[in-house]
Amino acid sequence: MIYQKVALIGLGLIASSMAHAMKGHVGQIVGHAKSQETRDTALEIGLCDQVFATAAEAVAGADLVVLAVPVGAMGALAAEIAPHLKPGCTVTDVGSVKQAVIAAVAPHLPEGVAFIPGHPMAGTEYSGPRSGFATLFVNRWWLLTPGEDVAPKAIETLTALLVAMGAKVNTMTPEHHDQVLAVVSHTPHLIAYTMVGVADHVAQVSNSEVIEYSASGFRDFTRIAASDPTMWRDVFLTNKDAVLDILGRFAEELFVLQRAIRMGDGDHLFDYFTRTRAIRRGIIEAGQDTAAADFGRVAVKT
Amino acid sequence: MIYQKVALIGLGLIASSMAHAMKGHVGQIVGHAKSQETRDTALEIGLCDQVFATAAEAVAGADLVVLAVPVGAMGALAAEIAPHLKPGCTVTDVGSVKQAVIAAVAPHLPEGVAFIPGHPMAGTEYSGPRSGFATLFVNRWWLLTPGEDVAPKAIETLTALLVAMGAKVNTMTPEHHDQVLAVVSHTPHLIAYTMVGVADHVAQVSNSEVIEYSASGFRDFTRIAASDPTMWRDVFLTNKDAVLDILGRFAEELFVLQRAIRMGDGDHLFDYFTRTRAIRRGIIEAGQDTAAADFGRVAVKT
Repeated sequence: MIYQKVALIGLGLIASSMAHAMKGHVGQIVGHAKSQETRDTALEIGLCDQVFATAAEAVAGADLVVLAVPVGAMGALAAEIAPHLKPGCTVTDVGSVKQAVIAAVAPHLPEGVAFIPGHPMAGTEYSGPRSGFATLFVNRWWLLTPGEDVAPKAIETLTALLVAMGAKVNTMTPEHHDQVLAVVSHTPHLIAYTMVGVADHVAQVSNSEVIEYSASGFRDFTRIAASDPTMWRDVFLTNKDAVLDILGRFAEELFVLQRAIRMGDGDHLFDYFTRTRAIRRGIIEAGQDTAAADFGRVAVKT
Repeated sequence: MIYQKVALIGLGLIASSMAHAMKGHVGQIVGHAKSQETRDTALEIGLCDQVFATAAEAVAGADLVVLAVPVGAMGALAAEIAPHLKPGCTVTDVGSVKQAVIAAVAPHLPEGVAFIPGHPMAGTEYSGPRSGFATLFVNRWWLLTPGEDVAPKAIETLTALLVAMGAKVNTMTPEHHDQVLAVVSHTPHLIAYTMVGVADHVAQVSNSEVIEYSASGFRDFTRIAASDPTMWRDVFLTNKDAVLDILGRFAEELFVLQRAIRMGDGDHLFDYFTRTRAIRRGIIEAGQDTAAADFGRVAVKT
C-alpha cells in the first residue's frame, strides 16, 4: 500500500476517477463533498470506504489529502482542514492553476505537512461523482510544482501513486506551469468558448444549422467549450496575468491575419498556414495524437 | 450505373476519395491532375481507369465532370474545359465556398450544361491522391447550391450518386451556404491557425512543451490548423465578406470576455460558459458527436 489512508475532498470528475484508479494501491479511501446528494452517490456507487459531512472529519488521520475542489474554494478549504491534518501527512491539489492555489493554501498548512501542488492534465466534458473512471489518467501528464523545502521522500511517494494510476509525472515551477497552461489549455478554452458564443448569436444562421453542420471544425470547439463553468471561471480569474498576456498576443496575431484577408494577401496566409502544419506534425511524432485520418470523424468511428 | 463516365479534375483528397467511393456506381472514371507525379500515382493505385495530361481531354465525353481543384483555380479550369464538355453533361465542384466558385465558373459554361455547385463537408488533415478513402463521405453532409434554372432531373441524378457514396445531401442558396460555413468552419479554422501560431511564438514556453502538453485543449486546434494551406488561403480570400463579418463579432465577444477576466467579473464568465454548454448538448443530441467521455483522448483509445 502506497498510502494507508487517503482523503478526497470534493468528489467530482477528478476525485472520483482517482478513487477508481487508486483502488488496490492504497489502504482506505475516505471522502467529503459539500452536497448531501454527492455524498450519497459516492457511498452508493462505492467510491469511498467512508464519507464525511465535513472536510475536517475526512482528513483526520489521512496520510494523503487531495484537494479536488474549484480553485476559488481552495483557500477556505485549507483553513478549515489545517487544524485536523495528521502531522507529516502530504497535501496535494488538482487545480488547473498553481500559483493562485499555492498562495491560497500554503499559508494555512502547519509545519511538517508536505504540500505538493499537482495538476492532472486529464478531463472530459462531464462532471460529478458518476463521471469518474479508472483510466482517466492513463498516459496523461500529472504536473507537480512542489516548493524546494518539500522532502524528496514525500514527492517520491506521491509520484509512485500517480504512476500506479497510469499517469506520467513531471515537476516544474508554479510560475512556469501557469505560463505553459495559459498557452496549451487556458487561452484555447477561452477562444473556444468565445467562438461557440458567437455562433449562438449570428442571426442569419440558425442554431440547428450550426449543430447540423458542426463537423467541419466547429465541433472540436464545442467539445472544449462544454467543460465545467465553475472550474473555468476560477481558472481565468486566478491565472489572469498569463491568460491576458497570451490573449493579447492572440488578438494581435488574429488582426494581422484579418488584415491579410481584407487586403487579399494570399502569400501571407499561405505562409502562415504552412508554418502551423509543422507544430501538428510534431504532436503526431511525439505520440500525443494518432496520424489516423479521423479529423472530425470520431462520431462516425466510435 | 448512375453515370456512364465521370471525369475527376484534380486528384487530391476529395477526388481520390470520390474515386474509391463511386466505384460500382458509375461506368468509367477518368482523371486529370496538373502534376505528372500525381497522375502516375493515380494510375499506379488504380484510382482511375484513364488519366489524361490535360483537363480538356479528361472531360471529353464525360456525363459528370467534378472540379476538385483549389477554389482559386476554378475559373481558369472552367475556361479551359468549356469547349470540350459533352452537351447536356453535369458539372459540379467540391469547393468550400460557393458564391466565388459560381462567379468564376458559371460564365464559361455553355448552355445546356447543368452546373450544380457542391461542397462535401468532409476532410482530413492529409492531402494528395494517396490520402483518399472510400468512407470519407459516409454520414457527412454534401451541400448543393444549384441555380433555379437547373433541371431537377440533373440534381436528382447527382444526388443519387452522392447518396450512393454515403453522403447526406441538402440544397441551399450559395449566399446562405457561405454564411453558414463562415460560422461553422472558416472562422474556426482561422482562429485555430492563429492560436497555433501564437503558441509557436511564445518564448517562455518551448515548442516541445507545447507539443508534450497539447492534450489539454490545444491539440484539437492543431488538428484543425493542419489542413491544406492552399485550400484555406483560397477559402479566406474568396469568402472574405462573411469571414470578416464573423471575425469582427468574434473579436468583440473576445474583448468582452477579456475585460471580464481583467475586471475579475466571475459571474459574467460563469454565465457565458454555462450558455455554451447548451450548444454542445444540442450537437450530441443531433448525433453529430458521441457523448462518450473522450475529450482529448482519441490517441489513447484508438
